[in-house]
Amino acid sequence: MTGYLYSILKPFANFSQVPFIDGQLYFIPLGGSGEIGMNFNVYCCDGQYLIVDVGITFADDSTPPGIDVICADLSALRSVRDQLVGIVITHAHEDHVGALHYLWNQLKAPVYCTPFTASVARRKLGEAGLLDQVPLHEVLPGSLLELGGFQLEWVTLTHSIPEPNALVIRAADRTVFHTGDWKLDPHPIEGEHYDDGRLLSLGESGIEFVVGDSTNATVEGWSGSESECRKALHEVIASQPNRVAVTCFSSNTARLASLGDIAHETGRRITVLGRSLFNYLQTAKATGYLKNFPDLVPTEDLDYLPKSEQLILATGSQGEPRAAMARLAKGEHQDLLLEPDDTVVFSSKVIPGNEKKLYRLYDLLSQKKVRVITEQDAPIHVSGHPCRDELRWMYRALRPKVVIPVHGEERHMASHSQLADEMGLGSARVVNGDVLQLDPTGVNCIARVQTGRLGLSGSSLIPLNDRALSERRALADGGLMTVTVVLDKKARLATEPQVQFVGVPSGDIDPETLNGDLRYAIEEILSEQNSRTLQSDDGLRSALQREIGTLVRQWLGVKPKQLVNIVRL
Amino acid sequence: MTGYLYSILKPFANFSQVPFIDGQLYFIPLGGSGEIGMNFNVYCCDGQYLIVDVGITFADDSTPPGIDVICADLSALRSVRDQLVGIVITHAHEDHVGALHYLWNQLKAPVYCTPFTASVARRKLGEAGLLDQVPLHEVLPGSLLELGGFQLEWVTLTHSIPEPNALVIRAADRTVFHTGDWKLDPHPIEGEHYDDGRLLSLGESGIEFVVGDSTNATVEGWSGSESECRKALHEVIASQPNRVAVTCFSSNTARLASLGDIAHETGRRITVLGRSLFNYLQTAKATGYLKNFPDLVPTEDLDYLPKSEQLILATGSQGEPRAAMARLAKGEHQDLLLEPDDTVVFSSKVIPGNEKKLYRLYDLLSQKKVRVITEQDAPIHVSGHPCRDELRWMYRALRPKVVIPVHGEERHMASHSQLADEMGLGSARVVNGDVLQLDPTGVNCIARVQTGRLGLSGSSLIPLNDRALSERRALADGGLMTVTVVLDKKARLATEPQVQFVGVPSGDIDPETLNGDLRYAIEEILSEQNSRTLQSDDGLRSALQREIGTLVRQWLGVKPKQLVNIVRL
Repeated sequence: MTGYLYSILKPFANFSQVPFIDGQLYFIPLGGSGEIGMNFNVYCCDGQYLIVDVGITFADDSTPPGIDVICADLSALRSVRDQLVGIVITHAHEDHVGALHYLWNQLKAPVYCTPFTASVARRKLGEAGLLDQVPLHEVLPGSLLELGGFQLEWVTLTHSIPEPNALVIRAADRTVFHTGDWKLDPHPIEGEHYDDGRLLSLGESGIEFVVGDSTNATVEGWSGSESECRKALHEVIASQPNRVAVTCFSSNTARLASLGDIAHETGRRITVLGRSLFNYLQTAKATGYLKNFPDLVPTEDLDYLPKSEQLILATGSQGEPRAAMARLAKGEHQDLLLEPDDTVVFSSKVIPGNEKKLYRLYDLLSQKKVRVITEQDAPIHVSGHPCRDELRWMYRALRPKVVIPVHGEERHMASHSQLADEMGLGSARVVNGDVLQLDPTGVNCIARVQTGRLGLSGSSLIPLNDRALSERRALADGGLMTVTVVLDKKARLATEPQVQFVGVPSGDIDPETLNGDLRYAIEEILSEQNSRTLQSDDGLRSALQREIGTLVRQWLGVKPKQLVNIVRL
Repeated sequence: MTGYLYSILKPFANFSQVPFIDGQLYFIPLGGSGEIGMNFNVYCCDGQYLIVDVGITFADDSTPPGIDVICADLSALRSVRDQLVGIVITHAHEDHVGALHYLWNQLKAPVYCTPFTASVARRKLGEAGLLDQVPLHEVLPGSLLELGGFQLEWVTLTHSIPEPNALVIRAADRTVFHTGDWKLDPHPIEGEHYDDGRLLSLGESGIEFVVGDSTNATVEGWSGSESECRKALHEVIASQPNRVAVTCFSSNTARLASLGDIAHETGRRITVLGRSLFNYLQTAKATGYLKNFPDLVPTEDLDYLPKSEQLILATGSQGEPRAAMARLAKGEHQDLLLEPDDTVVFSSKVIPGNEKKLYRLYDLLSQKKVRVITEQDAPIHVSGHPCRDELRWMYRALRPKVVIPVHGEERHMASHSQLADEMGLGSARVVNGDVLQLDPTGVNCIARVQTGRLGLSGSSLIPLNDRALSERRALADGGLMTVTVVLDKKARLATEPQVQFVGVPSGDIDPETLNGDLRYAIEEILSEQNSRTLQSDDGLRSALQREIGTLVRQWLGVKPKQLVNIVRL
């Protein structure tokens, strides 16, 4: 590992405060390093800033309730917003392009991506009403592009979506290979093959730094090819006697192409359930993919087909409760009821955190006597990210001086870094907010900038530590009680106090009796206060909260959040 | 599969309504069938009821917020409470004994279990202040017991806790082998070995039904022995240069015995962190286990030992946020700070649903440069439940007519049933609430009784579909706003309306301005109502909710729950 001086300083609130040196190139991830998701990378050179990827991440069990979508906090970029030379999107996955419409107002720089990605981005921007405002430029795979002082080369790789691009970024006499998401798939089914000749010649011309995908860096071997996956899928589907419903990631065009071919080969017709599949099918066809994909059978015509000729493609491979597969499992899909001896195929991995949700689906299907086949039963899924042998191949080809692992959680990045060390390459560790000076004699972290996660709440992006969000947790755990007292000018009760509970089970206690007892208790508490407390809203509120809280805890065994309204006439 | 007539009737609310036939034996699970957890089984014969196990289950991501512990709904038993002849606890795991103190008031029948289980039960009953009330009878492993018309034989098996017992239950000329939790461990380290002679002779004397553990019925092979696990643990711990912290299930006395021996063999001393470990160590020693376990080093003396001589046992193998291991990972443990080159060993499995929580711990430890070793890296954990070869061994020994899978989710029970079918045995499927008539010519479900899950809220057990719990979800997702209007006798505003938000982020909008605008809007809305609406609390409330709801959605993009207090003077 090369020298890595960790800044012990408080993070800078603004990029303009960072002591950048002219003639040097810097790499600063604001998202995606130390996590899988929310990729947002900044390269900075001579006062110019280049953004690579603008992704979201999804909520998990550590996220406050009511938040589904999370974006990187870009507040540090505010002070240099007019120095952005462009936004480059490597490919169309949500964790790379999904935040463009949420963060656009904070960026407002021209966007560059290849046609498939552009088509996905346009749909999102259109839905957000931003299509006219965003200058979206299509770049062909393999082309060159100059953005301010940055020379970019788009290098085609393979992944699990069409047009995954690595970028060669040249600035200030430095050369970085920014991998994006990739694998080495010799038979990718759809889209371009990776160009090993170009990778080798880039290695010869001198790549100094690789900023690279760590997702599978803990996994030995190769990720496997879509064409192997297709063979296994064919075998599984061909051997089913009845209806087969397959779910996979909707953006995996190669998988969809395979399923189209398999339908043809096994004498089945395809019906699609779920909006996201329709969207991606449309995008893929509009950009020249899925040329041989068969015409769909509309759901209303499904009954005319024998069950052995039906192949259903359904959204929801992660058990998303509102997606088609969850509805099918629950028997709640309006267009289709699965029956005993039907088969459901999960041609997908279980993303960590979704295990329980998926096991529940398997159980619901199993209860209906529907056969469930997952990647545990047959090799019907391959990952889109490089395993260790692919990383080794790439580093042998590119011969970088320093590998900088990104796109991974701590253990993935550590494993990636260890692999680089074992190969005799340098490695540098980075987390979101680190300002890395890309010096080939040693990558140094010269500073940190403010970073963080913002949750989408309605139309606002709010910090995940917003007080309102912690209040939600308290409300969720214990519910709420409100007490309303109306006092006249002499601070006497003008009418009966009111008590309401929300989210507080009264258990065996009759709610009417409980409320009556509490109203009486409130009158008692008020009568015991001295006139100074009675005149002070704060004093009165804390007296009521304290004493009523104790009573409720005694009577119900719980501690709801309390809201005391004091109204003075 | 033998005949299985599924009752299409509405479940009976009370056991006394079920058309039981005299001279027949019935099996009715009220918990634990279709799930792993919350075991509660009822056997009924000639108007007498025998309870086997009284367990809890823990909340998961499908449970309403604020509920941690779940028990079976026993309301159907209420009408036959004085016909309970006894409660038998097979072993001391939480999902078998953990609900005894919560459900005691609904049961009040004598309790029978072996000494280790009794010791664990006594601690729980003591903490709940119930020790004097519960007649708790200790039964020695292998003994016979008559409870009303039920003849019971306690049969020692092996598992992951001391004294796991199967029960032979004889009544009405029927013979049932109720397995409890078990595996076949030829070298269980602590406690009795299983008695294969007794199992074979039981098979010869004629077992008709097995009601059995399905947990690992999807897994081929054998679960493995504690002694193999001990070897691997020894190797792992012996090769660590510095401090080693191990976490495992606290109730696994054999694992603790192994760790005690390994400490001795590798020249380390043991320190224990976490209450549950102290409790189980104490219980085990008091009941004759862990005879060679070394004396503990108090945490305050830890610093006197070289790091290479420290072996820490810590609670929290499932990433429980308040347990010792999570605190160590976060660097928040008051007694110990882990340092680079220390090692943490997870001698445990990941219980489904805990994946993300544990990955976060691994990452936190990895950030501190602490080595993490899990069962993925070395065979340092074995399951306590039978895999398919163990099930086959058992059924070859017992030669039952019918296998009734319990203790599993749908897919585990289906797999278990399939195994029985493959062996040419009968199998019958059951879910909580089914009333199975144990007739050797065919197990029939003759009826269903009311069943369900109750969540522990404070001191009450409440249905998980209680309205208050769904309100909590709404509060969690969107927060709450309260509106208070005080009206005089002519239904005019007596003072300014009040607005309060809890758990509602105001985003970019200034809260003061927002509240001011809403107060103004409320006055406007009131002024627009006709006198009939103004006189009706319900009418006024819904008008305010509708119009204020629309405004808040426009301004903030969110829909908080609304609580409108109308106070009339």
